[in-house]
Amino acid sequence: MSAASRVINFGAGPSALPDSVLQEATKGLLNFENTGIGIAEISHRSPEFTSYLAGVEALIRQQLGVPSTHSIFFTQGGGTGQFSAVVLNLLARHRLLYPDLRDEERGLDYVLTGSWSKAAHTEGLRLGGGQVNIVVDGRLHSKDAKSFDNIPPHASFKFSPNPALIYYCENETVHGVQFNHAPESIDSEGKSVEGTFPFHLLPQGQLAPLVGDYSSSFMSRPIPRLADHAVIYAGAQKNIGPAGLTILIVRNDCIVDVDAAAKLGAQPIPITLSYKTLADGKSVYNTPPVLAIYISGLVLKRNSELGGVKYYERVNKKKAEKVYEVVREGEEKGVFRGHVQEGSRSWMNIVFVVLGDGKEKAFLQGAEEKGMTGLKGHRSVGGIRISLYNAITEEQTDKLVAYIREFLESQ
Amino acid sequence: MSAASRVINFGAGPSALPDSVLQEATKGLLNFENTGIGIAEISHRSPEFTSYLAGVEALIRQQLGVPSTHSIFFTQGGGTGQFSAVVLNLLARHRLLYPDLRDEERGLDYVLTGSWSKAAHTEGLRLGGGQVNIVVDGRLHSKDAKSFDNIPPHASFKFSPNPALIYYCENETVHGVQFNHAPESIDSEGKSVEGTFPFHLLPQGQLAPLVGDYSSSFMSRPIPRLADHAVIYAGAQKNIGPAGLTILIVRNDCIVDVDAAAKLGAQPIPITLSYKTLADGKSVYNTPPVLAIYISGLVLKRNSELGGVKYYERVNKKKAEKVYEVVREGEEKGVFRGHVQEGSRSWMNIVFVVLGDGKEKAFLQGAEEKGMTGLKGHRSVGGIRISLYNAITEEQTDKLVAYIREFLESQ
Repeated sequence: MSAASRVINFGAGPSALPDSVLQEATKGLLNFENTGIGIAEISHRSPEFTSYLAGVEALIRQQLGVPSTHSIFFTQGGGTGQFSAVVLNLLARHRLLYPDLRDEERGLDYVLTGSWSKAAHTEGLRLGGGQVNIVVDGRLHSKDAKSFDNIPPHASFKFSPNPALIYYCENETVHGVQFNHAPESIDSEGKSVEGTFPFHLLPQGQLAPLVGDYSSSFMSRPIPRLADHAVIYAGAQKNIGPAGLTILIVRNDCIVDVDAAAKLGAQPIPITLSYKTLADGKSVYNTPPVLAIYISGLVLKRNSELGGVKYYERVNKKKAEKVYEVVREGEEKGVFRGHVQEGSRSWMNIVFVVLGDGKEKAFLQGAEEKGMTGLKGHRSVGGIRISLYNAITEEQTDKLVAYIREFLESQ
Repeated sequence: MSAASRVINFGAGPSALPDSVLQEATKGLLNFENTGIGIAEISHRSPEFTSYLAGVEALIRQQLGVPSTHSIFFTQGGGTGQFSAVVLNLLARHRLLYPDLRDEERGLDYVLTGSWSKAAHTEGLRLGGGQVNIVVDGRLHSKDAKSFDNIPPHASFKFSPNPALIYYCENETVHGVQFNHAPESIDSEGKSVEGTFPFHLLPQGQLAPLVGDYSSSFMSRPIPRLADHAVIYAGAQKNIGPAGLTILIVRNDCIVDVDAAAKLGAQPIPITLSYKTLADGKSVYNTPPVLAIYISGLVLKRNSELGGVKYYERVNKKKAEKVYEVVREGEEKGVFRGHVQEGSRSWMNIVFVVLGDGKEKAFLQGAEEKGMTGLKGHRSVGGIRISLYNAITEEQTDKLVAYIREFLESQ
């Protein structure tokens, strides 16, 4: 099938992949790097795959500027598995650092800004019980006092005294809410700059372990203060590859002897979720998702050739600005209503409502007829959601914007 | 690349896939079932994928004769994740059935016959602690009193009084030890027929929950008494697809409310490992490995057209017999030494040693020169290992046998 007859997929993920990558992948399926064996068949312990995996790691390290204080791991997708893993690994770390604290003193701090942070919080409650703390609930700061539509002001954040982790979801795929990426997101006193990440300075002078879920924005732009994070993780299936792979960036002091922690009373960790196992086994103790890693590697290589995350930051900013501009035109005309408050609007997922009976259906139908798909909002929010992941080109965005303008004119 | 220039991959897995499947998969990568979207990009909640997944389930159900008492789930690979999942889910079930027992009365029974059952046992110890019981250790019944080379006699099995699970690994990939597949593996009194599965009748008259790890033999032949198993699971990467997918067959009474069990004192289960989550979410609560499921579906469809597991039983038996025959010729000549005792020899992984300095290297080199690869034994056992998974044809086996005979003649 020619690339021309492929539809444009604005879906929220698993998302579009570049045509050139898919063409390359079809070759690898039959013959991976001249081994005569397809990538779906090759051993994950073969020298060829080991070297490929090291190359993928290097591409991430170089593009995001991951320092040597942090390790990069590859594990099974999706992100949900990591909701559990961060809790168990960071509670183990906390137990080893502070063996004498009571469970309720091992706070698990969640910043709630949408349905993914809410799901992570629910898993924290399942595994951590009484020690879970809500730093802030975005719904209490929303326009209608019930929806996730904003990153709340930092003044409202309430941290535990000595949390085992602080969790935030950098981009909420369902609600289209995203943290602000100011290059300087932490001031000279170690406090977060308003609108940026929920850093929290402990009395001892270090930052509390910060966990960022980057599942739907990873590799779409640089990550400021990456080195100040304890853990960053992301499912591959938005910006860099197929479903089935999650990439982890873990600060080395968070890779702890989980069995030693269990002897001190921490909950035992299923072995595939342990960072220690990932580190000791170089991500292949448990059979890794080889095919998803392969395709992600092709995407990352292409990214690098294009100019890496700095290139994507530039392009993604432009794409988002163009779409938000036409959404604002629709708002002014009384045809659209944007879901998210200004200042918290996501570059990746743009959510709005088409006002008027049957109008939303007409909007979606018109788009489908022009070969543009995946625009229906998540069932929990409704309306329209436009996902502008890396593989969506500026040209494809222009085509969508032209269609939206046409739709507005017909109203 | 033409199929002809692909090497023959006798590796122990991730293993060979049929050329026709790989060719078909290259089309799906660009355009999945005429959606205009590639399979690596499509939503796992789209009607097209939902229907495809139901089709894959139906193919497994039909070919293995899975009754309606059992559910089929798809989850992340590899099998190692399930070492933890069976323990946590079946301990939760045991807790709900017998809330008043002490932990040490919730036996986790392991039949040790090779390195995979040993790894499962180690995970049982990590998560279950003092309640772990070794039913039998195959090393105590070996030729040299230290290797895994046999399925021990049933008379030596020692079960816990009321175990939460009995675990066995049907085929030990590393050691080449496999349970006997007699069609009647349980007698009229509910006892196992010698050499077959470790069924254990409880005083109440039911069978204790039996867990079979079928990672390296799934879909290679029928599974006798499948309905009498509590859980059967298998990584896809041996006989049916790429790494990244594990398939589960779970008896419905083993899908329990894990959170209710946790309230009674059971250990909480990370959500992606809970059978309840897999059941309620129809295997897509956590983003599933879509690409691996897709390719596995293509393989299963092809299997079905060829005659299903009955066809493979016939072909795999012939392939194994041909190779064991030439291995025996080598043994008689004093050139080879088979690793596994007669009666416990695997159809899937045939392990033997080439005697004499430098002979093994020469054997491997000669095979490579003829385009046959993956024959080196696992580092923990050494020697040669020939893996004869479904995708290896009889013709390819003949080519290997001819080479081995030639090698023997040159000695």
